[in-house]
Amino acid sequence: MTGEDAAEHAAKMARIKAARERMMAQRQDEKGLVIVHTGSGKGKSSAGFGMIFRAIAHGMRCAVVQFIKGARDTGERRLIEAHFPHLCRFHTMGEGFTWETQDKARDIAAARAGWDKAKGLIRDPALRMVLLDEINIALRYDYLDIAEVLAFLRDEKPPMTHVVLTGRNAKPELIDFADLVTEMTLVKHPFRSGIKAQAGVEF
Amino acid sequence: MTGEDAAEHAAKMARIKAARERMMAQRQDEKGLVIVHTGSGKGKSSAGFGMIFRAIAHGMRCAVVQFIKGARDTGERRLIEAHFPHLCRFHTMGEGFTWETQDKARDIAAARAGWDKAKGLIRDPALRMVLLDEINIALRYDYLDIAEVLAFLRDEKPPMTHVVLTGRNAKPELIDFADLVTEMTLVKHPFRSGIKAQAGVEF
Repeated sequence: MTGEDAAEHAAKMARIKAARERMMAQRQDEKGLVIVHTGSGKGKSSAGFGMIFRAIAHGMRCAVVQFIKGARDTGERRLIEAHFPHLCRFHTMGEGFTWETQDKARDIAAARAGWDKAKGLIRDPALRMVLLDEINIALRYDYLDIAEVLAFLRDEKPPMTHVVLTGRNAKPELIDFADLVTEMTLVKHPFRSGIKAQAGVEF
Repeated sequence: MTGEDAAEHAAKMARIKAARERMMAQRQDEKGLVIVHTGSGKGKSSAGFGMIFRAIAHGMRCAVVQFIKGARDTGERRLIEAHFPHLCRFHTMGEGFTWETQDKARDIAAARAGWDKAKGLIRDPALRMVLLDEINIALRYDYLDIAEVLAFLRDEKPPMTHVVLTGRNAKPELIDFADLVTEMTLVKHPFRSGIKAQAGVEF
């Protein structure tokens, strides 16, 4: 790199830095967010659990409700219960994917029980983050009423609590309501080349 | 739900279950994957760290190289070093975002040092997963040579090791080469409504 290149680069980076600092200075508010991870790609739940571990790293109290038992291995649950039981509560509801159970009435009852548990956790202002893992599947099949869930988040969520909702096919009403929405898009998947689900990757 | 509805539902779910079982039976191979999280949305690094915590939960040895210091808070690092130093090694390279340093030569040197460290970790067959956090930024600016990185992954990565590469603007050559690629797409972001970066969400 010539001296001129380096000077040009430094000037460009200084402009980016100044613009970034102006932008950050305009952001003053802090509030608990409603965060959605949706889409057919991978990483929706992994990113949710990544946020939970980051909350734990900050010493923030938090909780997880898994709406679909069997959707994930129990690895995260074991790790959290073994190392961080004082910071993170963990509840697994449901009986497995709907195509495993073939019993709609039981799935509905499990979803409702999960939501009742979730409401109690979200109402507790000591908890700073609550992950509702795979709740979008229960909402999509109308096992839970989307209007009821949104009214609860609007009226009863403490202002500083973050609630993270994951699962594909998030309802449009939830996307409208949320503060932060990320869609995980599948670009390429090894299942298509005959590779099976593996520890550490899929579960 | 009437009895007929329930019977119809059960039959439909049984068909889905049978199709799923046929599909899973065709997937026999297990191998270490090259996994990319890219896109301008959130969750790329969080999902990477979620995978690292899941690997830890399975007792799999793993490692993290952070290519951009200051891109993230040190929360995950503190948590891993305090609780799981026997399972996960952690290295932070670099001096911060390029617009913070304004020194291209130093950034290049930091990226190269990070890649040298990464190569040593990936070569160690005892490690089952290596996260190269934000390496895509170093590749995008050609601080690292994409051809060299791909040749190394092809020729020297042990067959069972998963390597996860994160960061926006993944190079097309990397996407072509990878086994599993997810694009995190920004649907909605609270910065746009004046909300500042917050602990547990952004860092």
